[in-house]
Amino acid sequence: MKIALAQLNYHVGNFESNTNKIIQHIREAKQNGADLVVFAELCVCGYPARDFLEFTEFINLCDEAAKTIAAECRDIACIIGLPTPNNKPEGKDLNNSAYFIADGEVKAIVNKALLPNYDIFDEYRYFEPSTSFNCIDFKGKRIALTICEDLWNTIENPLYITRPMDTLIQQNPDVMINIAASPFAYNHDDERIAILKDNASRYNLPLFYVNHVGAQTELIFDGGSLVFDNGGNLVDELPYFKEAITSYTLGDDAAISFEHESTVRVQKQSDIEQIHQGLILGIKDYFYKSGFKQAILGLSGGIDSAVVCALAAEALGPENVMAVLLPSRFSSDHSIKDAEDLVKNLGCKSEIVRIAKITEAFEESLSPQFKGLPFNIAEENIQSRSRAVVLMAMCNKFGYILLNTSNKSEAAVGYGTLYGDMCGGISVIGDVFKTQVFELAREINKDREIIPENTIVKPPSAELRPDQKDTDSLPEYDILDAILFEYILNRRSSAEIIKLGFEEAVVRKVLRLVNIAEHKRYQTPPILRVSPKAFGMGRRMPIVGKYLS
Amino acid sequence: MKIALAQLNYHVGNFESNTNKIIQHIREAKQNGADLVVFAELCVCGYPARDFLEFTEFINLCDEAAKTIAAECRDIACIIGLPTPNNKPEGKDLNNSAYFIADGEVKAIVNKALLPNYDIFDEYRYFEPSTSFNCIDFKGKRIALTICEDLWNTIENPLYITRPMDTLIQQNPDVMINIAASPFAYNHDDERIAILKDNASRYNLPLFYVNHVGAQTELIFDGGSLVFDNGGNLVDELPYFKEAITSYTLGDDAAISFEHESTVRVQKQSDIEQIHQGLILGIKDYFYKSGFKQAILGLSGGIDSAVVCALAAEALGPENVMAVLLPSRFSSDHSIKDAEDLVKNLGCKSEIVRIAKITEAFEESLSPQFKGLPFNIAEENIQSRSRAVVLMAMCNKFGYILLNTSNKSEAAVGYGTLYGDMCGGISVIGDVFKTQVFELAREINKDREIIPENTIVKPPSAELRPDQKDTDSLPEYDILDAILFEYILNRRSSAEIIKLGFEEAVVRKVLRLVNIAEHKRYQTPPILRVSPKAFGMGRRMPIVGKYLS
Repeated sequence: MKIALAQLNYHVGNFESNTNKIIQHIREAKQNGADLVVFAELCVCGYPARDFLEFTEFINLCDEAAKTIAAECRDIACIIGLPTPNNKPEGKDLNNSAYFIADGEVKAIVNKALLPNYDIFDEYRYFEPSTSFNCIDFKGKRIALTICEDLWNTIENPLYITRPMDTLIQQNPDVMINIAASPFAYNHDDERIAILKDNASRYNLPLFYVNHVGAQTELIFDGGSLVFDNGGNLVDELPYFKEAITSYTLGDDAAISFEHESTVRVQKQSDIEQIHQGLILGIKDYFYKSGFKQAILGLSGGIDSAVVCALAAEALGPENVMAVLLPSRFSSDHSIKDAEDLVKNLGCKSEIVRIAKITEAFEESLSPQFKGLPFNIAEENIQSRSRAVVLMAMCNKFGYILLNTSNKSEAAVGYGTLYGDMCGGISVIGDVFKTQVFELAREINKDREIIPENTIVKPPSAELRPDQKDTDSLPEYDILDAILFEYILNRRSSAEIIKLGFEEAVVRKVLRLVNIAEHKRYQTPPILRVSPKAFGMGRRMPIVGKYLS
Repeated sequence: MKIALAQLNYHVGNFESNTNKIIQHIREAKQNGADLVVFAELCVCGYPARDFLEFTEFINLCDEAAKTIAAECRDIACIIGLPTPNNKPEGKDLNNSAYFIADGEVKAIVNKALLPNYDIFDEYRYFEPSTSFNCIDFKGKRIALTICEDLWNTIENPLYITRPMDTLIQQNPDVMINIAASPFAYNHDDERIAILKDNASRYNLPLFYVNHVGAQTELIFDGGSLVFDNGGNLVDELPYFKEAITSYTLGDDAAISFEHESTVRVQKQSDIEQIHQGLILGIKDYFYKSGFKQAILGLSGGIDSAVVCALAAEALGPENVMAVLLPSRFSSDHSIKDAEDLVKNLGCKSEIVRIAKITEAFEESLSPQFKGLPFNIAEENIQSRSRAVVLMAMCNKFGYILLNTSNKSEAAVGYGTLYGDMCGGISVIGDVFKTQVFELAREINKDREIIPENTIVKPPSAELRPDQKDTDSLPEYDILDAILFEYILNRRSSAEIIKLGFEEAVVRKVLRLVNIAEHKRYQTPPILRVSPKAFGMGRRMPIVGKYLS
């Protein structure tokens, strides 16, 4: 049996585009002699469709799309994922289903049993878990078909004790197929391989795994679909961060053969390389799927906006990136020069809009209210907010989307101005700690100096008052990021973090800053997720909560 | 047996305050001769504690608080709610538990079985559902204790077929007690009474139901705890929107007697009266629980900001409300006069900051980029954003929290400026349709004219260009709100809404506006929830999704 794996970039709710793409790849697989082509979990509607799933019309459109796809399946079978109505007398309205389609009709339906409902996942919000499991017979092979989390288990770390495969294995299947929607995080490829490897060897079966690729707002899917033999050996790995279709022949002895060269771990990338690729895809898809082409951002001369500008130029083309220099009376000469050097290196568009007259107008208009009071955070924030108003006016006038340039360390401790530098349509590096931003800058400069060296080596500053440095109010970034990592990713308490060797006063201050900044993060743009715990839909904290604040 | 019901206002994560409040009411109940005092679901940590629940330290603090509370329970028993570790070998880390405490120790633990995971609820994110059910024997009575959703069922509309009470009833209990965290929506009191009434009569048992009261950021809890006899008759109803403790004697014949006057439906309020009370509580608790006292808002002379100003003055005291008039060159004279009249009627503080010089500074600074291009939405939004910068500068200087004044109709169709009038710490009327805002204004003016009549009767306008009216770009509000209601609350498709008799072009336009404004709503403040479907945590839509846009 020849099996094709189609790792594609879908668009949530865009039935026309998703259906066309699926049909086109069914045809391609057929031409290539495949007996079966496998698409990803919920590929018909895209993932995550979120509360679109609560609209009956949306579910009807999924059904119609499936019918259109089924009509294409002559002389080839396919597996697609879609939400379907749950016909049981109680429970959630839907199932997270896989259709096995052959001879133009749905031959078998498999429903997902293990529904992730942690971090960014909300599957219990919509779906009823399956409780019955049956293999599918096709061309002399018995297929154990499961959906994503249904295989999310290792012997060493059993998240679930009740496993669909433990029932399916009793029916003597010849092969496992798993369709997934497994979002990217820089450590996720290794975890995925380990878990699926464990399944292949535990059940002594070949395993074909098909993932999504492409970004849906903040969630990036990295592809990296996988093929294991029945010894648990990884025999092939599809590309990361791009679409692909590949074919495999499954022999009678469970042997897997294929004509292309295996790419197993050939593509293995460092964390920072993966983050780099993920962010490029995230930016690209955000613009493409929103129907926009042109990005704008404020360029300060600092490292954060420089990195975002370079990423945007790579993702969208420099001709589609407008960098705006917005110097105030506190901006240093080197900042303007560093920003100008970057623009030159990238070849993107740029403008300079000086904000001194604007901030003066605010201060003058507010002088009856502010009279006699010293310059403080109010005036600092006026600068940041004036820049945002200028950038948004240019968005409104010319149709740009503003890129947010805050990093994760700043977003964590609230070191940013709401409605100022925290604005934007999408936050590009809001899940990248400041220490990682430096690494990313080096990664971007790998082949040639794009980001000026001076931007990388100078001490970070918001430049909102004379001689300001980030370290005036924050610990050094290596300390700060280490504490933030323990708190946000490992969810350790202050006592536990102090025990790791950090200074008590610093730990308490940092955790307090994180907790009192929830109200700010609530109003920030969606953040491209590259880590296992990003701010946004995967981290849901109370705002008026008192714990630790 | 004498049972006291304590309907209290907790604060998420504030163990000191919650524990003290619980202990104080245990003492009060004991002095009053009660045998048992019942507190609400998850009262120890507050509801919803959201991802605080993922911190081991947080769960330990709940355990410590429970021990402190248990030590108070001598000569009185109590029921409290808290999260507890799940000791089963698989599943979620926690249970949503109730402790039955007597003689200073935990005598019985009941875990919640039916975990809501729809709308604003995320209980499957944290909790493992219970599968075993046991009554509690105390002072000759057998108690069937359940938690909130465990009774959320009627015979006519069975959401769940597997019901904890169907098991518990086989153990012949004498009484049902249900502890809940059931958030307010203007239609929710009737629904709650109907469902609980149905339970009392179906199981032929008296029923004591204790709810939370008070707001946690966007979620308002209205109290309204209930007592039913075994015939399903509502015999008492605790106050709405305030704390209370009341006592009942449960006789041997299941008869319920009490010394105070029954308030059953005495307090029955109209939807708009409930919304009014709910919003007052929502504002009050947002400020109190955040540790702030003073609110600021921009007063345009229009009805939305007038209503928010009046509500804030009622909630916080007029001396704690700063209303800022921010006229531009397009502001009409009547707007300024209407705003000034309101300030006079309320007795709140006010300032006037003219923004003409500020918007001129923006336009001048941007003139090289904008040269030759006509005045459009870019310049309109500069006005709105300049106002936001002024208001936020005053927040930063004086420690105010900015109140957002957008209504639900505007928020729905994106008729508002991101980082402009969409700013604020909390959105007061973001779940109130414009047609309801008019009703609310009449309700506020019930006893005397607070909101100037002219503010209510003049045609709504954003006043961002000469002679602008809302109806230039939107349908009349009664049509708009009716369509929005069908789409947002009833989740009907455009085809279904058109079938109801609305004009096709209007329906398509409105739905499209709603869908393309997701990116704006994503960045708005938390919205006080008063309806069954509010924007925010209870409505989770894709941003780059294509469906209907």
